[in-house]
Amino acid sequence: MMFNFIKLESKIMNSQIAKEIRICFVGESFVNGIGDPECLGWAGRICVDANTKGYDITYYNLGVRRETSTELKQRCLREVSYRLPQESDGRVVFCFGVNDTTIENGKTRVAIKDSITNTRDILKETQKLYPVLMIGPLPIGDPEQNQRIANLSQEFLKICSELDIPYLDVFPVLLKSEIWIDEIKNYDGAHPRTAGYAELAKIVQNCEPWLNWFE
Amino acid sequence: MMFNFIKLESKIMNSQIAKEIRICFVGESFVNGIGDPECLGWAGRICVDANTKGYDITYYNLGVRRETSTELKQRCLREVSYRLPQESDGRVVFCFGVNDTTIENGKTRVAIKDSITNTRDILKETQKLYPVLMIGPLPIGDPEQNQRIANLSQEFLKICSELDIPYLDVFPVLLKSEIWIDEIKNYDGAHPRTAGYAELAKIVQNCEPWLNWFE
Repeated sequence: MMFNFIKLESKIMNSQIAKEIRICFVGESFVNGIGDPECLGWAGRICVDANTKGYDITYYNLGVRRETSTELKQRCLREVSYRLPQESDGRVVFCFGVNDTTIENGKTRVAIKDSITNTRDILKETQKLYPVLMIGPLPIGDPEQNQRIANLSQEFLKICSELDIPYLDVFPVLLKSEIWIDEIKNYDGAHPRTAGYAELAKIVQNCEPWLNWFE
Repeated sequence: MMFNFIKLESKIMNSQIAKEIRICFVGESFVNGIGDPECLGWAGRICVDANTKGYDITYYNLGVRRETSTELKQRCLREVSYRLPQESDGRVVFCFGVNDTTIENGKTRVAIKDSITNTRDILKETQKLYPVLMIGPLPIGDPEQNQRIANLSQEFLKICSELDIPYLDVFPVLLKSEIWIDEIKNYDGAHPRTAGYAELAKIVQNCEPWLNWFE
């Protein structure tokens, strides 16, 4: 009797000490953390932060360079559901859209109406299976493309509001960040480096919907 | 003329300063870095190290918990080729096999003859497209399973020798590592923590086939 009680209590204590959560981060190069020589990007940093707070995070980074929302839609649920079995506590964080707005052969890689359809489809399918959080597309070093990214971010906000998915519109915040903008200018015109990603990580890890996952 | 010359020279200099290499790390939980609160594991650490040496590594971590070689075979080339387009300088590092040797319902999850077939198939298909490096399966906290892992590692060595793929047999080295074994015992019986992964990273980043990739 006594022994069983102690075992039970120790189980509860373990789950309090290190609650296991598996998170897939899905999107483009900014999710992968391109430009960060420390190989963490913002996604890795917010998982490290959650670990320091006593969680036991399984961190699946599914960011792929150059990927558009059209491409992402094809592989998203297959890769995510393979990593987040239903018996685990799985969550999904999205951040994409910048590549959709790049001009190639005189037009954007994805038309805005298709970006909207893709995004709605991706989010609707994923939220059937997992809690979802969406981070808006990020500003880069090109003012004209930034205008298109800002427009897309507003559309994503509407979709997330419809679907009742928390949406973090980081675009205007990062556009005013000297660290973010300077690192991009001094690197490849699109990606920041360690300090920029650390800045974004701070914003995400302190936002309400992310904190609500760790109550 | 002068302008073209300067552009060309600056291109060469850039490629010397930061040669871009994209690497997929494919395997099970040990590739993901389960147990490392710093979210780097050994794979992240060796990429950080290459970055400090002046390379520009795109780090794709495709480690999936609980995955056997039978399961890996199904998704490997699809996920890898999606991330490593032929026009990029792509490489693949494998590390798997421990899950194959786990006993479930009175037998190993994968019979050793199937592990061998799977591994040969995976490596043969991948080496057609990319340079490949294989890290052998790692010791855990269970002596009986470790015997099966050691056997499997010897089989993997033979396959890699046949296929002319560099193979790093880390099993005997880590079995003697107090850091590796103690961290596993004090965590979940299978995975180390930060110091153990750092130790493995040091072994891999100093091995000849890895160094040959960065000449």
